[in-house]
Amino acid sequence: MRMSQLVGKRFKERPAEASLESHAFLLRGGYARQVAGGIYSLLPPGLRVVRKIEAIIRQEMDRLGGQEVLMPVVMPRELWDESGRYDAVGAELVRFADRTGHPMLLGMTHEEAVVHLCRGEVASYRQLPFLAYQIQTKFRDEPRSRGGLIRVREFTMKDAYSFHASNACLERTYQRCLKAYRRIFARAGVPETAVVQSDSGMMGGAIAHEFMLLCDAGEDSIAACDACGYLANAEVAEGRVRPRPEAEPLPLKRVHTPGQKTIEEVAAFLDVPEAQTAKAVFYDRDADGKLVLAVIRGDVEVNEAKLARVIQAAPVAADPARVQAAGGVPGYASAMDVDPEKVRVVVDHTVAASNNLVCGANEVDYHFENFCLARDLPGALTVDIAMVREGDGCPRCEDSLSLRRGIEVGNIFQLGTRYSGAMGMSYLDEQGREQVPLMGCYGIGVGRLMSSVMEVRHDKWGPIWPVSIAPWQVHICALKHNKEQIREASSRLYDELQQAGLEAVLDDRNERPGIQFADGDLLGVPFRLVVSERNLQAGGVELVRRGERKGEMIPLDQVVSRLSGDVQQALAGQGGLRTN
Amino acid sequence: MRMSQLVGKRFKERPAEASLESHAFLLRGGYARQVAGGIYSLLPPGLRVVRKIEAIIRQEMDRLGGQEVLMPVVMPRELWDESGRYDAVGAELVRFADRTGHPMLLGMTHEEAVVHLCRGEVASYRQLPFLAYQIQTKFRDEPRSRGGLIRVREFTMKDAYSFHASNACLERTYQRCLKAYRRIFARAGVPETAVVQSDSGMMGGAIAHEFMLLCDAGEDSIAACDACGYLANAEVAEGRVRPRPEAEPLPLKRVHTPGQKTIEEVAAFLDVPEAQTAKAVFYDRDADGKLVLAVIRGDVEVNEAKLARVIQAAPVAADPARVQAAGGVPGYASAMDVDPEKVRVVVDHTVAASNNLVCGANEVDYHFENFCLARDLPGALTVDIAMVREGDGCPRCEDSLSLRRGIEVGNIFQLGTRYSGAMGMSYLDEQGREQVPLMGCYGIGVGRLMSSVMEVRHDKWGPIWPVSIAPWQVHICALKHNKEQIREASSRLYDELQQAGLEAVLDDRNERPGIQFADGDLLGVPFRLVVSERNLQAGGVELVRRGERKGEMIPLDQVVSRLSGDVQQALAGQGGLRTN
Repeated sequence: MRMSQLVGKRFKERPAEASLESHAFLLRGGYARQVAGGIYSLLPPGLRVVRKIEAIIRQEMDRLGGQEVLMPVVMPRELWDESGRYDAVGAELVRFADRTGHPMLLGMTHEEAVVHLCRGEVASYRQLPFLAYQIQTKFRDEPRSRGGLIRVREFTMKDAYSFHASNACLERTYQRCLKAYRRIFARAGVPETAVVQSDSGMMGGAIAHEFMLLCDAGEDSIAACDACGYLANAEVAEGRVRPRPEAEPLPLKRVHTPGQKTIEEVAAFLDVPEAQTAKAVFYDRDADGKLVLAVIRGDVEVNEAKLARVIQAAPVAADPARVQAAGGVPGYASAMDVDPEKVRVVVDHTVAASNNLVCGANEVDYHFENFCLARDLPGALTVDIAMVREGDGCPRCEDSLSLRRGIEVGNIFQLGTRYSGAMGMSYLDEQGREQVPLMGCYGIGVGRLMSSVMEVRHDKWGPIWPVSIAPWQVHICALKHNKEQIREASSRLYDELQQAGLEAVLDDRNERPGIQFADGDLLGVPFRLVVSERNLQAGGVELVRRGERKGEMIPLDQVVSRLSGDVQQALAGQGGLRTN
Repeated sequence: MRMSQLVGKRFKERPAEASLESHAFLLRGGYARQVAGGIYSLLPPGLRVVRKIEAIIRQEMDRLGGQEVLMPVVMPRELWDESGRYDAVGAELVRFADRTGHPMLLGMTHEEAVVHLCRGEVASYRQLPFLAYQIQTKFRDEPRSRGGLIRVREFTMKDAYSFHASNACLERTYQRCLKAYRRIFARAGVPETAVVQSDSGMMGGAIAHEFMLLCDAGEDSIAACDACGYLANAEVAEGRVRPRPEAEPLPLKRVHTPGQKTIEEVAAFLDVPEAQTAKAVFYDRDADGKLVLAVIRGDVEVNEAKLARVIQAAPVAADPARVQAAGGVPGYASAMDVDPEKVRVVVDHTVAASNNLVCGANEVDYHFENFCLARDLPGALTVDIAMVREGDGCPRCEDSLSLRRGIEVGNIFQLGTRYSGAMGMSYLDEQGREQVPLMGCYGIGVGRLMSSVMEVRHDKWGPIWPVSIAPWQVHICALKHNKEQIREASSRLYDELQQAGLEAVLDDRNERPGIQFADGDLLGVPFRLVVSERNLQAGGVELVRRGERKGEMIPLDQVVSRLSGDVQQALAGQGGLRTN
């Protein structure tokens, strides 16, 4: 590619809308342009990076025996009715009517589509297991798109789906996919990507992991134990909360707490630490339609993702009118005085571990002191609905947890029969009995991965692409391109490099060195060759690696072999990453 | 690929819904499955063919200096408001509101998107010309999808857009693209694809060509002259209509024609040939809102595509009430008696070439005889609005035209400033003046091309894929795969072929020869190797080309070199086509 012809300009000013470094470089480097909120067009350098990531993914999926298919963007409602998700999923699922009025939707994930595609194709256990994948455009109407390609509405995703006759087989494929994902992220230049336990969310199923690229720009919170290596998304992480000192139960005592509603207010008013209170929060509603009262120690927050799994529904803050109708008193709620027909009480383990807590008296302006779960709410089962906190004990070892930020660049789920069962997929087992296959699914957001790599591999001048996914491998700066000698030498190098199978971009614009270098930095090309009169006089060109300051003079006749070697070496390593 | 693992089954029965052979094979061969009307998922064999077609297209586009970009499926309404197409295009454009209520649409073509993408990137004539292309998913809500992937609602398309500072430059790129398209279709195995003049339709612009694969299954009608090679879509083809024998004008004469409304009725009633009548048809309405009265010789039909270009609007049969309000009499319309303020008269050349025609008298139950255009409608300009007919004279030579059917597999348009002008794209020319770039656009439907090749390259057992786009190159039939000797020999061949870079599919299912051969035929694999006990005993395997009956024994140690040579030779030719 000659820079004079490259579609898309680069610029110096940081765009006002860019919240992240990678977002700024995405625009400044001419990688992508926004078409609407969360919808982008990719310019040639951006698409070149994306295509290389896709090639790595495709290679690793094929190595697992994956078979590439292609499912549609637009699907009829019926498919999602079969799984129940047409109604269950919110506004992020785009619904529309076609010209005949038929309800259609835009695919944001393809479990339904893949079961539809495969259920008629599989008759016997002999055809299992198999792994089908696609690299395809999806649309999810995100309320908040952000960070360039980090969180968008339209995106390219690799989604893979496996089908199995046994859990052991699913588990084997799941582990092989997990390892393939490690290789993919390593080859894409981010071997530090961590595997964390995660919530399966709207996907259903029990076991799920996310691949997190730890960095400050991440939206996800991850609990990490440096001692034992425990890593889990805060949505599922189980921190050990330090119990209150043991204490003999004291008699329950009603106290006047006029106008004191929040935990902060009550604790200050009664002069007790927040950890000596029990917080009770109403949610609307569990899978049976009941109100939910979540009870947890006052210094710990309710983790709504955990609560959702307990009540089998998405918890929403309850309407005060509905709380009152059920006999509850907002601000002074008590688990001791509710109608079990109307309210389901969910108690966190932290409340069991403590005695003599302050809690609401279910009466305006009154609380109880000395609430003891075992005595005052006998028979209550406790569960984990606590939000993990920095410093909580690690659930695996004696050490404590710290909280980190991460970008989710991939995820894998064991779906079980969630979709195959709902959509009537079956096969005959060895004994001729009809069985429902088990499924796994495995996703990677391609554009997000590109932006994420940029987020963790850049300096102040631009991205520092790993050789494996750089838009080009070699950037030839022809200083004073209007001079015959420079034009000739740079063109010859350009041709020779391309003939050797290297990807070169030639700056033939006769721009000042500063502009050529700045553009090369924004394109993040790993190797820069400087063709100048002085260098040619010295019999060579200067080779500078992206992210390094000092160059090295290379004789003209050694450039191609040197760069071929360097590129090969980088690609043979873990994605050619140099951490500098 | 081992057949035992291949996702997707093949079957014998012709599906009831298949109207075309290619549609039947698409389903029977496990290439694709319908998800909804005009929406398909591709199974591995189908996607493999598609990817090969895409690779050929990409290579030829890159060879033209094309730069690959990627634009979105979902676009905001504003973009299409800028070009005026949001309102101008009908129900085939899917419109929906996003979660905030913002009007969005699904891209069915990307002129607006590419101008949006590039208008901020180009400042100077020095950056022109350039060619940007994408291979991307589109959705067009077709009222009638048909023929498998021939006409669908969701489709993968290669669309390219060029930008120019002069018409001469646009013309050069247009011609280079035309040649590239010829290479693409030849390499995809259909070198007979014809270039025909075409209508630019909703795209705007003046010059356009279509690439037509001539076959009975085609939806388009093409006028062809075997003598001089003239080829044009019937929508634009200009046939020479044989003029009526010269005759002296006779006096205009009003005749009573009770109840005779149609040309057939009137001609029979007055005992004249239809060619001696003038037909007058009302349409609603031209670009100024006027009624349109199209007048043409009675034996020729009005070509509404041609009429649309004359009146700059899509003609629709006029509402009789509106005709009457304008003073017209439906069934007895006359061009001689209309209010030019209300009705625009458009006369076809055929009417000028004839004398003494029968036409309506603008009065119920009456016609005129002996209508002569020059005398009775003095000053009327004539245009070409005639539908070409089999046997019409060729406009280029003395021979006559025949009508053929064709599938449109590609199209190219000179758009001029239709989109760049409407959307405010500009650059500074050499003199520093602001100018609007000229544009061309160039499309190929990838899935349609796959189905079209299947439509013209098949026998009764399945498609006969050209080597260049076959899902696999070699099909190894292992007869009695349960025998050690067969299993070993076929696996070794399979490994050796793959190591040599050949794409092989191994039938390892222990099925009867008939099933293996039938499946291989449905997959259309160009070379079949039969590994059997008898063949091994004879020291080799049998090689049979798809579409041929007679095989040839090849010694085991020569199989790889022989097939490598055959495949290379086929690929070096025009897409490896064998017409048998």
